[in-house]
Order: sequence, then C-alpha cells, then structure tokens
Amino acid sequence: MRVLVVAAHPDDETLGVGGTIARHAQHGDEVWVCILTDGVGARHEQYARQSECALRAGDVLGVKNVVFLGFRDQRLDEPALLDVVQPLERIVADFKPDIVYTHFRDDVNQDHRVAFGATMIATRPGAGVKSVLCYEAASSTEWAPPLGGTSFAPSVYVDITDTLAAKLEAMRCYSDAHESEVRPYPHPRSYEAIDVYARRHGVESGLHAAEAFMLVRQIVSDEGVADAG
Amino acid sequence: MRVLVVAAHPDDETLGVGGTIARHAQHGDEVWVCILTDGVGARHEQYARQSECALRAGDVLGVKNVVFLGFRDQRLDEPALLDVVQPLERIVADFKPDIVYTHFRDDVNQDHRVAFGATMIATRPGAGVKSVLCYEAASSTEWAPPLGGTSFAPSVYVDITDTLAAKLEAMRCYSDAHESEVRPYPHPRSYEAIDVYARRHGVESGLHAAEAFMLVRQIVSDEGVADAG
Amino acid sequence: MRVLVVAAHPDDETLGVGGTIARHAQHGDEVWVCILTDGVGARHEQYARQSECALRAGDVLGVKNVVFLGFRDQRLDEPALLDVVQPLERIVADFKPDIVYTHFRDDVNQDHRVAFGATMIATRPGAGVKSVLCYEAASSTEWAPPLGGTSFAPSVYVDITDTLAAKLEAMRCYSDAHESEVRPYPHPRSYEAIDVYARRHGVESGLHAAEAFMLVRQIVSDEGVADAG
Amino acid sequence: MRVLVVAAHPDDETLGVGGTIARHAQHGDEVWVCILTDGVGARHEQYARQSECALRAGDVLGVKNVVFLGFRDQRLDEPALLDVVQPLERIVADFKPDIVYTHFRDDVNQDHRVAFGATMIATRPGAGVKSVLCYEAASSTEWAPPLGGTSFAPSVYVDITDTLAAKLEAMRCYSDAHESEVRPYPHPRSYEAIDVYARRHGVESGLHAAEAFMLVRQIVSDEGVADAG
Amino acid sequence: MRVLVVAAHPDDETLGVGGTIARHAQHGDEVWVCILTDGVGARHEQYARQSECALRAGDVLGVKNVVFLGFRDQRLDEPALLDVVQPLERIVADFKPDIVYTHFRDDVNQDHRVAFGATMIATRPGAGVKSVLCYEAASSTEWAPPLGGTSFAPSVYVDITDTLAAKLEAMRCYSDAHESEVRPYPHPRSYEAIDVYARRHGVESGLHAAEAFMLVRQIVSDEGVADAG
Amino acid sequence: MRVLVVAAHPDDETLGVGGTIARHAQHGDEVWVCILTDGVGARHEQYARQSECALRAGDVLGVKNVVFLGFRDQRLDEPALLDVVQPLERIVADFKPDIVYTHFRDDVNQDHRVAFGATMIATRPGAGVKSVLCYEAASSTEWAPPLGGTSFAPSVYVDITDTLAAKLEAMRCYSDAHESEVRPYPHPRSYEAIDVYARRHGVESGLHAAEAFMLVRQIVSDEGVADAG
Repeated sequence: MRVLVVAAHPDDETLGVGGTIARHAQHGDEVWVCILTDGVGARHEQYARQSECALRAGDVLGVKNVVFLGFRDQRLDEPALLDVVQPLERIVADFKPDIVYTHFRDDVNQDHRVAFGATMIATRPGAGVKSVLCYEAASSTEWAPPLGGTSFAPSVYVDITDTLAAKLEAMRCYSDAHESEVRPYPHPRSYEAIDVYARRHGVESGLHAAEAFMLVRQIVSDEGVADAG
Repeated sequence: MRVLVVAAHPDDETLGVGGTIARHAQHGDEVWVCILTDGVGARHEQYARQSECALRAGDVLGVKNVVFLGFRDQRLDEPALLDVVQPLERIVADFKPDIVYTHFRDDVNQDHRVAFGATMIATRPGAGVKSVLCYEAASSTEWAPPLGGTSFAPSVYVDITDTLAAKLEAMRCYSDAHESEVRPYPHPRSYEAIDVYARRHGVESGLHAAEAFMLVRQIVSDEGVADAG
Repeated sequence: MRVLVVAAHPDDETLGVGGTIARHAQHGDEVWVCILTDGVGARHEQYARQSECALRAGDVLGVKNVVFLGFRDQRLDEPALLDVVQPLERIVADFKPDIVYTHFRDDVNQDHRVAFGATMIATRPGAGVKSVLCYEAASSTEWAPPLGGTSFAPSVYVDITDTLAAKLEAMRCYSDAHESEVRPYPHPRSYEAIDVYARRHGVESGLHAAEAFMLVRQIVSDEGVADAG
Repeated sequence: MRVLVVAAHPDDETLGVGGTIARHAQHGDEVWVCILTDGVGARHEQYARQSECALRAGDVLGVKNVVFLGFRDQRLDEPALLDVVQPLERIVADFKPDIVYTHFRDDVNQDHRVAFGATMIATRPGAGVKSVLCYEAASSTEWAPPLGGTSFAPSVYVDITDTLAAKLEAMRCYSDAHESEVRPYPHPRSYEAIDVYARRHGVESGLHAAEAFMLVRQIVSDEGVADAG
Repeated sequence: MRVLVVAAHPDDETLGVGGTIARHAQHGDEVWVCILTDGVGARHEQYARQSECALRAGDVLGVKNVVFLGFRDQRLDEPALLDVVQPLERIVADFKPDIVYTHFRDDVNQDHRVAFGATMIATRPGAGVKSVLCYEAASSTEWAPPLGGTSFAPSVYVDITDTLAAKLEAMRCYSDAHESEVRPYPHPRSYEAIDVYARRHGVESGLHAAEAFMLVRQIVSDEGVADAG
Repeated sequence: MRVLVVAAHPDDETLGVGGTIARHAQHGDEVWVCILTDGVGARHEQYARQSECALRAGDVLGVKNVVFLGFRDQRLDEPALLDVVQPLERIVADFKPDIVYTHFRDDVNQDHRVAFGATMIATRPGAGVKSVLCYEAASSTEWAPPLGGTSFAPSVYVDITDTLAAKLEAMRCYSDAHESEVRPYPHPRSYEAIDVYARRHGVESGLHAAEAFMLVRQIVSDEGVADAG
C-alpha cells in the first residue's frame, strides 16, 4: 500500500501522523511525506535547518521519501490555490497513493487550511485515491474556534501503542532546529503533551494509545479495500 | 469477518445495505441482519408476511442469520431506549461483529432514529466492534429536514457494480408482502429509484454503482484492520 | 420576472440550473447568465472556445443575455473579493433580477466559493433581489468534504421533467470545446450522470426529474411574491 | 391557496405566524390552524379558556378553521409519535394544504419538537404539500441552546408591515385566558416584544416589519409555484 | 455565589465537574449537586450503595447539599420530560443558583440527554440563572457519534491544577459501590484516564490541568457578573 | 481589567460592542479599540474623515486608546493573513488584554472574516488572553447566509440598559463622515435599528437592552476569573 502525508510545515507530519506512519512502515507500506513550506523568510526564522530535521524524523518513522514544495512558511495563502494544487496533483499522479492524510479544514493556522483545500482537489474521485483523512496538528487543530459545529470530531482511531515511542523519537529530531520546535509542557508541542494526546485518543477508542483522524472519503472498490491503518 | 446490519423494518436492510451485504457474502464474510420491528398492529398492517420476505431477501443476498426482535412497527419510541439496547447488546456479545451498519441519526422516521441510538450504545468502544456506519434508508434519510447541518453526508462509498442485480432481486422479495413494499417510480422504494440511487452514489465516487455510508467510528488496531467493505 | 444565474465557468450554468433556466424561459421570464471566468491561461486550456459554447447553450435554454466578466479560470481567488463583487453589483443594479442562482459556499472548487461570496454581497437585502439560491455544480458540489455539517442539503426542488431534454441538448454544446467538457460515465459531467442527478432529485421530491437548490434568502413582500421557479 | 399552521399550544400560531396568516387571508388564501394540545391538567392550568381565545384570535387574523387535537399540554412526548402523526395526516389528506407552517426542530419546548417531528412525517413528499416552513415561537425558539449549529437561522422573510396590527390584536385575545398569556416586557410574549421581533426581522430583510421562517422544503412543479407568502 | 450541578447518575458530577466543584468550594461558593437517578432496578444493579458514595464524594469536593430525585437509572426517557423538569424547577427556585452545570445535549447516554433537556427548561431566561454550561461526562460525551457538527466542542476551560487531586480522591469514593464505578485503564472511568483528560484540556488551554465546558448561556447584568469559575 | 476591541472598519466597534464598551469603562476597565482599515481608496470613499469620527465615538464610550492599522478598506483579503496578524500580535503583547472582542467568522463582509481569522491567531492560548468573544456587526452578521449551521448564535448577553444611550450618541459621531454611516430605517445602521437590536437581545435574555456575543474561549485560571462583562 502507498501512503501520502501532506504537511504544511516540517513537524506537522510527526505531530499528527507520526505513530500511524510508523505503523504503516512496519506493515510494509510505502510512505511519502510532502511538506508544502520550508520557510525562507518564515515567521520564526527557525525553519532553516528544519528540512534536515524532517529528513531525520522521516528516517525514524520509516518514511521512504520526503518531498519539499518550498512555499513560504505562514504565507501559503498568498499564491492562488491552483499553484499549490498543481505540484500536489503531480505527486498524486506519480506516486499513486492509496491513502492520503492531510490537515483539517478548520485549523486555526491558515497554511493548514490551504493544505486541506489543495488536497481536496488533488484527491478528488478519479484521482485513484482510496481514502482521505484529516489529522490533528498539535497547537492548531485544538485551538480552532468552537463555532457552528466545525470542530475536529474524529471518526477513525489508529492504534499507536507500539509506535508511540517512535513518534516521540521523531519529534526529538526537531529539537535541533534553529529554534527548537519542542516546547515545555503544557505546550501542545511538548513530549508530555504528545503522550497525553495519544492516551486521550486511546481512552476514547478503547486503546492504550491512538492517533485520531476525521475521514473525508473512503472508496471501497473491487480492486481492493482502502485500509485506513 | 462478521457483519451485523441493524434494520428498523424488514426491507431497510435491502434498501440501505443490500449491495454491500451481497459483496460481503461474496468475500466470504458472515452477515447477520437484526430487524427490530415486525409489526403486529403496524401502521400499514402490511408487515404480517414480511418476516418471510426478509428471510427470502436475506437468502438472495447471502445473509447467514436474520434475527427478529419483535418490537411494534412505527412505535419503537414507546419502550425506554434501554429495552431496545439490551437485546441488541446480547447480539453484539454473541455474534461479535467486526462491522455494524445501522440507521442514520436524523432520518425522518422515528423508528430509524431509535435504531441509531440503540446501536450507538450497543457498539460503544469496548464492545469490540471495529467499524460502525450509517446507511441511507430510501424514503426516510433523503426526506429528513435540511436544517442545521444534520443531513446525511456520506464519507464511505462501497462499489456495488457487481451486486446491484442481487439488491434488486432481494427487493423483489418484498413485492409479495400483504401490501407490496415496492412502489411505482418516482417513489424511493421503486426498482428504478434503487437503480438511480446506486448510480448517483457511483458518480459521486467514480464508480458505476455504489452504496453510500456515513462513518461513525473505525478502530484500526493491531489485531487487524477494520474493513468497511 | 427577471432571473440571474451566476456561474464561475462556462457550463456550470447548464449543469446546475439548465432545466430550471429552460423552465423560466418557457414561463416568459427573462434570464441572464453571468460567467465570471473565461479562462485565458486556464488550467486545462480548454476554455478558449467556450464562450461560443456558452452562447449556444444559452440559446438552447432560452437565455436572453450572457455576460462574461473575463476573470482568469481557476484563479478567481487571486483578485480581492471586492474586484469580483463590483462588476456583479453593476449587473444587479442594471438588470434588477428578482431571483439569483449562484454557486454553493462549500464546493470543492475555489472559483465556486469566490462566486458564492461575491454573490452574497451583491445580493444583500437592499439590492432588491427577492430570492437567492445555491445550485449544485456537478463534479464540485458533491465532491466537497462531508465535514461539520456544511454539505449541500437542498431545500428547493424544481420540476424539470419537461426541460431535462433541453438541459442535455445545452450540455451537448460544450462537447465542441477545445477539450470537451463532456466526459464518459461515471463522470458527473457525462450525459448519463446528468440524467441520474435529475432523477435522484426527482425521487427525493416526488417528481420525475428535478434540479435541487439550497435557499439562501427569500423575501416575500407586498410588491409580489418571490417565485423560485 | 390553502395554508395550514401547526401549533403545539394556543397562541403559538399568533406569535409565530400571526402577521403572515393575516397576509394570506388578505390575499384570499384559506387558512386552517391545527392546535395539538389544549391542556386538561396542563402545566400552568391556564389553557382551560384558551380554545375560546384561539377561536377569537383566529377570527381577527382571518383563519377559516381551527382544529383542536386535544393532546395534553406539555406532555406531547408521552404518546408514540405515530399517535400524533395520524390525526395530522388526516388533516393534510382532507384539507390538502399547499403550504404548512410548523414549529422549529430545536425549540427548547419539547411539545414544539414533537410538533415538528410529526409535521415532517405528515408532509413528506407524496403528501402533496408544496412548501413546509418552520416558524419562530416566542419564548422557546430564541431560548434554544446555541450548540452545534442547530439554532434557528431564517431563510424566508414575510412582510407584515400591513398586518402587524392584526397580529397584536390577535395576541390581545389571549390576555383573557385564565392566566393571561401576555406578559410584561421584556418577556417575549409581551406586546412590545412582538413589535421588537417584527422590526428586527424587518431590518434583517430590508422591510419595516417581518416574520422570519426557516424553509424545510419547497417543491416547484408544473401545477403551480409554491408561494411562501 | 451559588452553584448547581445536575447529574444523571452518581459519579457524573465527579467525572465532569469534580475539579471545578472543588475550586468553587475553595473560593467560598456554595455548591449543590442534584442527582436525577439513583437506580432501583438499574442496568448494572450497582447503584444501590451509590447514594452513599455520592455523599462521600461530595464531602471530598466540598459540596454543601446533594439532592436525589430518585428517577430510575437508564430509564430517564420513560417519564414525560415535564415530570423531570418540575422537581428541577423547584430546586432552581429554592436554591437560586448563579451557575448551573449540566450534561451535554448529544451524549451517547440517553439519561444525559434528558438531563440536558430538563435543565434547558428549568434555567431559561427569567429563572435568574446567570450561566449555564455543559460538562463532559467520561464514557459518554466522547463516545457520541461525530455526525453533523454536534460533537462536544469546549469554549470554557477551568484550571483544576490545584484540585485534580481532590477529583481523584472523590472518584475513589465510587470504588466502594456494589460494582465499582472505577475501571482499569484505558476505560474513561479509570484514574489514569481522569488524569489524561485533565491534562489534555490543560494543554488545549495553556494550563497544567483543566476541565472543559461548552457554554450554553451567560448573562452579564448590572447585578454582578456571571462567573464561570 | 483590560479590554481590546478589534474592528475591521470605523463604526463596527460602536455597532457591535458600543454599549458593552461603555459598561466596561463605567466599571473602570481600560478599553482599547484596534481598527484594521481606514480606507484610502475605499469602496465608498467615505472613510476619509472616519478616523476622526472613531476618535470622537471612542471618547463618548470611554475608550482609552484607538489604534489604526491602516489596511485598505474592503481589501483586507489582499495581504497574507500573517501581515494582518503581526501588528495585532504586537498590540496583544503590549496591551495584554484580558478580554478581546472581535468579528464573527461567517460575516458576509470579507474584511470581518479576515479580522476574525487574525484575532484567532493573535489570541491563541499562551497569548495570555482570558476571554475571546465575537460580536454582531450590523448589516453584515445578520446578512450572512443561513447555511450549514454557521449562523451567529449568541451565548453571552451583556446588559446595556444603562449604556444604550451612550451607544446611540457614539453612533451619532459617524453621521459627520464624508458620507454618513448612519442610514434611514429599516437599514441596520439606523438609530431605530440599533434600538431594536438592543431590545431584541434584551428580550432573548430577560434584560431591557442587551448586546449579544458568541463565546470563542474563556479561560478560568487561578490568577483571576475571566469576566465577559
């Protein structure tokens, strides 16, 4: 099975899908990560060494390929959406993923919202993708305003009991960034918070540790069943 | 894999899940159907011979077991919800289904809403069910009021290109009821409408014919991946 | 009665409102279509001859006037919204439509979302418009993500039993485009899909064939009742 | 045109639809009101003389027929929904209304919610009703909890500039009840509040005074356009 | 300040509001708990000694008064809603709470939903209550189906860093019930899960430990500001 | 207490929060207003003298400081969101507000939507803000499309019985603009409409006059209770 993870920024893939990526890799699935921004002139200027961090984190999790699209960090709303869609469409056409994980539509971070919108177009029926799921990006998804029923409400839980350690180790790769992405507790990007989130979603689903997703679309067709895990 | 279909009335299982049931059976899955009402003193009095119809329809689709709980048709809101939950819990405990298909929360028919509520309790995490999905019950789901974002919005599409014929044949079993459940077009319970619905959901998902579901919960754990199809 | 249809791209007006336009024309209503983009440098480069197609389709449906605003196809999110609103406001001020049909807010296509937003401003109370409705644009509205209750949930159904043939004929005008807009089944922009969608909405509403709309606002005032059909 | 107003309690029809009823009557439409409860053993015991009040209010507004179904006030959730649906279905079958006005699904009052549910079944497509709308019942609709996007969000505004006086006069009929339904300002059932609500909805829609409705379904078919006003 | 907590079952008040109750008590607020069911003939028969447990838990948290309404456990949907509302209205009239905490509307447990509905009526504007908030009841709120935007989406976070220990100690009182309410991890009613939930909501809000609520209504009037904490 | 009001255009702060600002000032709170656009080359060219108007209105209401960010009126969607966020973040860092009032996410005006989005980022947990609330901006919030449950549904009501006069007086300051912001009734920006809105929200909440807000987040921590009024 081929798995594509779309991430607005380096570390989103680890925070949101790290345990599930490792699980996919353990099951022999091929995982690619596509990182949309790598941040020249970024908000916090800390992204300079992050590509490196992302590659190391990918190694820890078993990612086969990390693609950087090079958009400007925190400015993904500047280009027309089409300009973000087109390189993503090419990756989908080349890699032919069965499952795509992407950001959530209503995250407080605007880059995440653009990433979601671009993925929706690049994975529309006909593109050959079997499953599309949104992940929870720590310090953005849970900070979205609770208005009008648009909050993140997970429908899919993936057991990461055996891969939570790998997720934490991957996160450790980001502590070497110019300005560490890892913060002290109770920040959502602390090691303790990663553990708490995994266990909260575990309790929600009867597992010891889990990552939670919101299913966008799953197509169960004759050629094989789309497998969210 | 074990599959349980919860239906408020005989024929709901065929209208909502018929093609998918046949697909499960073809893949060697064991399918049980639990019909909550069979209608002494029912609204239309047509349910007398319907148990028979349901058994014949089940045969066509490859159902292994049809369980009738015997609640009164159109009066599923009379007992306390607990009284509907308990026999359903026993079926879940005995049969240990991997996947459960049930009615949609906001159907215009009150029996469907009770069936949904009872299934939510009987399949809560801990019950061992991997996937819970809501199906579209013709002449109820699509007639629900479009208020406040609670309409049926499918996230899972199952290819029924190869089993649509079996679905139509199963529906034919219900034309022998005291008062036929099958109506002339454009009623949603006509053969033509069944075909139109299957093709509409097919077009939505890039398939020739499909049934559409709304995922409630999927748990992807170490013991095996929950498979919605 | 005066009717305005706002379409992001040529063919959206036919796919979404074709049968209803023809019905308006048969009832003697004056129908204008405003097409926002006509696509120099467009995504698929197929729009070059589409203005012509749109005019011919308009003839088939009985449209009196087709206005092209000339924004770039698939890049309607590049200008400030105000720049899209202002020419639309002028059309509303000049034509004084009673009813306006526009795209749906949550379509997967970003041009549609901009068209919706611009229409909301150009038709706000005070502009003299009696009814504003959103239509379903094949291959966009039904591919929107089913998250948070924002899916298309129709409240208005228009009988197109007598005008479905005209809708299909108008669609045929688009098969002459540089790259035909018409695709093979099961694509939503195939003739068969158009028929399936019309019949699905018919079954939903007790009609043989229908187009479905989501009402935004209807003002019933002394000067005459806003008529959605 | 034939118009049916479904009201859980006497005075709901005046508070929610009074101005629109009078407008219908002025246009020559035949209006029936169906009052579901008339309250032996009611919560406030004030309903004893209210049938009388309802008849007098109906006279003021131009109602042709007031039907009392006699369910117990504040206990409409005791019978099975079917028992409320059946008499309503008979009224729909006999009177054949074009438009039905009913309560809102998420009102804080449980009788209103049952009235809504029963109307949804009695007016489903096939029953011959062209339009179904929910009205705002003062001291219930606006007190519903603002959770999850289920609040009353009007889509239809009816001009009651010329009939607001009649609405207030009809409300006056209810001041003679055992315990007056009319309360001092700022209670929603005060004369001042009725005026404020009418003007608020007027301002929302560019009118001097309006009543606001949420459209459930409008079917625009060959036999004539459903007219919400 | 006077604080009322409405709980369907003994232990709901501790699981949902325990830390906040203790915080109120520490600030000198008077806290009452109203427990709607105490369960003769209950689902699990474990409620016999629970009244006692509830009293002991209340002592730990600093509750002044625990009122038992004595409805049947898991059967709160049997009486008419009015019969649940009336005793609650009397408590509100007698105790005159400033803040009321109650269950969430869309919990998977039906008793919780009834408790919510009854509280909405008993605390409507005019009853003198300043703030109404819904709490999260472990093993019910987080198991509600994520459909249509009706999931629990907290807007209010209360710091329980200093009172989490008291919450855990109060929960310990329930381990003496006929069949202990406390379950092994990863059940939501385990000590570890209580800790995880508190820390998850802490991380969401920048606190070390928190309880999370969904605000229904807050009225800020001249007589003093409603204080949610 | 420190209070920050974020307004897209001069007069939004008065229309949406005027009475509450005056109430804060009367209680000794320090209120700042941040106006994002002041409109060189604006849509209506009427903003030239509006900075002056805003200062005078601020004086009437008791505002301590009015900050103008100088973005172009009606074109707040042109810059990247980050460029709007950064100056707002600096104000939050400097002024350290306890409460922030901002626009509503789904207003029909695009500048309002940008203002909302920027505020969400500038006030995320960690920024030290205790409460964030959305206000209703006349002629925008109530004209938003009632689709999918995203309408403004207030949860917080602030008593402005004593400060409604100040609100109206502040609005009068805007009648001196190049083209008066004040319109004749029934426009939402007329004096009569301001009065009607205040009384409508009063009736909803049992007060004589009120402003209504939708709570985004309130953090109740040890250092003091966030006070929405």
